[in-house]
Order: sequence, then C-alpha cells, then structure tokens
Amino acid sequence: LETATTRRTAALLLIGNELLTGKVQDQNFSFLARELYALGVDLVRVVVIVDEVETIAQEVSVLSQGHDFVFTSGGVGPTHDDVTYEGVARAFGTRVSRNKRLEEILRSRYGEGTNEGHLRMADTPEGVELVFAADLRWPALLMRNVYILPGIPEFFRMKFEALRPLFRGVPFVLAQIFLRCDETNIAEPLREIAAGFPDVQIGSYPRVDEADHRVKLTIESRDAERVTRALEALLGVLPAGEIVKIERPE
Amino acid sequence: LETATTRRTAALLLIGNELLTGKVQDQNFSFLARELYALGVDLVRVVVIVDEVETIAQEVSVLSQGHDFVFTSGGVGPTHDDVTYEGVARAFGTRVSRNKRLEEILRSRYGEGTNEGHLRMADTPEGVELVFAADLRWPALLMRNVYILPGIPEFFRMKFEALRPLFRGVPFVLAQIFLRCDETNIAEPLREIAAGFPDVQIGSYPRVDEADHRVKLTIESRDAERVTRALEALLGVLPAGEIVKIERPE
Repeated sequence: LETATTRRTAALLLIGNELLTGKVQDQNFSFLARELYALGVDLVRVVVIVDEVETIAQEVSVLSQGHDFVFTSGGVGPTHDDVTYEGVARAFGTRVSRNKRLEEILRSRYGEGTNEGHLRMADTPEGVELVFAADLRWPALLMRNVYILPGIPEFFRMKFEALRPLFRGVPFVLAQIFLRCDETNIAEPLREIAAGFPDVQIGSYPRVDEADHRVKLTIESRDAERVTRALEALLGVLPAGEIVKIERPE
Repeated sequence: LETATTRRTAALLLIGNELLTGKVQDQNFSFLARELYALGVDLVRVVVIVDEVETIAQEVSVLSQGHDFVFTSGGVGPTHDDVTYEGVARAFGTRVSRNKRLEEILRSRYGEGTNEGHLRMADTPEGVELVFAADLRWPALLMRNVYILPGIPEFFRMKFEALRPLFRGVPFVLAQIFLRCDETNIAEPLREIAAGFPDVQIGSYPRVDEADHRVKLTIESRDAERVTRALEALLGVLPAGEIVKIERPE
C-alpha cells in the first residue's frame, strides 16, 4: 500500500489568455508531466486559467492545500497582463511589494539602464522564498509549496531543471503489452485482472496510427513484484496470438 | 459592454492518466482553443484529471454549473479504465445503463461479431441526448450542457467539426503590434493605455525565437471600433522606431 512517504502529489497551474485563445500552444504541461513521472512524483491535476488576479488567487489557494507541490507557469513578466505574483500573494493573504534582493540583482544586471519595467519584476509576494538552485542567475520563487515559474518554455525548463533535485519521489515500475486485436476483444479479461490488482494501475490505450498494433496496455506500480505478477496474470488470459510485443520492467 | 447574449463561455475537461504521466501529449486543448476562439466562444478554463469516477463527477458538476458549454475528452472506450460515462452520470445524479439506440447502432455495425466489449460502449448515462450531427455514424453524446467526446485526437476533431454549428458566438476582432524592443521598455506606457481601455483585452507577449521582433502586442474586443481606438492610442505612446509591423483588423 502506498503511504504518505512514498506518494507525493503535484499540480500545475497554467496562466494565460494566449493559451485559452489558441494563440500559443502550451509546451510546459507535457514537459513537466514526463519529468515528474520519471522522478516518481504524481502529477494529478492541471488547470489552465485566464490572467485574472482573483481567479489565480482562488486556484492557487485550492491547489496549494491539496497537493505536496504546485507549479505555476506564466504571468511573471513586467507588463500589465502579468498578474501571477498579485494572485499568489492574495492566495496567501499577503501583498506584493518590491523585494530588495531581487532589486539588487536587477540593478547589478542592468546598471544605469535599469528602468521601472525591469524593477517591476522585483514586485513579488511578501514572504516569498528565493531559491538559488544550481547555476540560476535569477532565483526560482517559492511561496509555501508553490513554485512560481515563467511561461516561456525555454525558461520554464531551465528553472525546473535547476530545481529538480528537490522533487525526488519513488518512481513507478512499468511493463507494457502491445496487441494487434481491438480493445473490445480484450475488455472483459482485462476487467477481471484489473479488479484482482486494485493496487496496480492497468491502462488500455487504443492506437490508430501504429502499423503493428492496435492496443497498448500499461501495467504500473511502485512495487516491481506487483507489476510482474499483474503482467503474468494478464498474459494468462489475453489471446496469445494477438500479442505483438511484451516490455518487462528493467 | 458584454452581455449574456454576446458572451458564451466554455470549459474543457481532459480525462486520462496517460496525459498526466506524460505518456501521451494532449492535442485536443489547442485544437479546441483555436476553434472556439474563431467561433467567438470564450474558453475560460481547462482541467486535466485522472481516470477516477468521483474526481470526474465533481469536476463535471462544477464546470457544468459555471459555463455555457463543457467538453470532456477521453475515457469513453470499452475497457475498465474508461469511466467518463460513470463520472458524468454521477455528476447529474443519475446512473449508467445500456442505451437501446446505441446498442442498435453497434449491433447493426458489428453483426454477429458483436461482443460485450462493443456493447459496453452503449452503457451511457441515463437521460443522455444523442446528437446525430452532420454525417456522424456514431452520435455525439450530450448530458445537459456537457458534450462527451473521445480522447483520440482524430475522433475528437471529427466529432467537434460535426457539432461546430451549435457553438456560434460573436468572434473577437484582433489587432497586433510587433516591436523589436524589450517588454520592459514599453511596460509603463502599455499600462496606462490598458487602464484607459478596460473593455479591450491588451496582451503583451515576449518572443525569444523570432528574428525581427521581441514583443507581440494583441488588442482584442468584440467591438471593432474599440480595437481601432485602442490601437491608435497605443501607437500614440509606443516608441515608433521600435515598431516592426502593425496588423489592423480586417
């Protein structure tokens, strides 16, 4: 059984009108999903919302209470439509003010060319923690369990990669079975085995664009032995002639 | 001012462990975002959740109450991990049972080869409405204001395209300004104009991968005249030498 020490959950909040109007295609969700899966942290919820202070505040508050880690993406630039810091501050009952340490970093970077637009990026929630992970020139911002990351994919990745050591969980063990028959032909035996292994996640995915198979089954647990047992149980009931390939845990 | 008749809102619920573990990259969000924007319907919220009946039920209930249209994506196949119908039924206080009309369609398609796996796809929420839009062989399923769509991108698109005439709103008018300077250099004048046009959405997007510009400004409203006025106001305060290109409303 999974305990609080083996299971850590995460949520991602994508903030930006440009995503919801289809002007920009998000890349941070799939990146973070793959990263957290590899680390063994369960990403259980992603929410995409508009750039509105009150909406951000409500969502951050709910997500922060329900998950070990929360990541926000977007809305941290210097312009009027960047209101993530304001929303996060309101979520935690605090306000935005100019952070002295961040102001120093900005002034040392831009020198005499420092303008109000630059300094706006130092206007952050009071009580925010600055995480100078790895070789980040600009720290990651952490408010309680909420990591406030930039929306531009290159910067989101760079920040997450610097922070990565903070999020180690217990990774899943994965086995896979590929079949050439249709999902409908295996739904019933699959249902029986899944019911017998409630602690193992068994997924069935139809594939329309693969030449050699039409279904991929995934068998996952943090306990390698349970994966092996569920795999063997499945192989005992699935039509052997339809199996194209089996990928056992490493 | 926008009224209830000009503004129609939508939410999208993506259902699937495979998205949250990064095994599959979602394509339906960006597709639907572009489509709804073109139609003039405001997509204001997207949520991604795991394949769990109770989680689906709660989310569908909340989204259905808060939006004109809700779209779900995924979890409608024949296997044990397809629990969207169960979740939607629970959201509306009803249950899943075998729909006679859908059973007929399945039996006429698969004939004597019809199996329990096929028929499972007729196990749908009681009271569901079947929408035989355009040339769909299999109807779209509608529960109150919730359109239940398949997760496979090809099928999601096909279904949405058949339904498209149902979702006509009043489209936005868009103008754009591209600048070669940094966002920080225009943040202050931009803030002033945005404050003077609270009914116009003015977005500022830094670009890191474009050769000729570093900022794209978007100016949007359902009222073309307001867009033109906000555009002219912006052109009056932005540094003319930094403007690379202006796209006026058509």
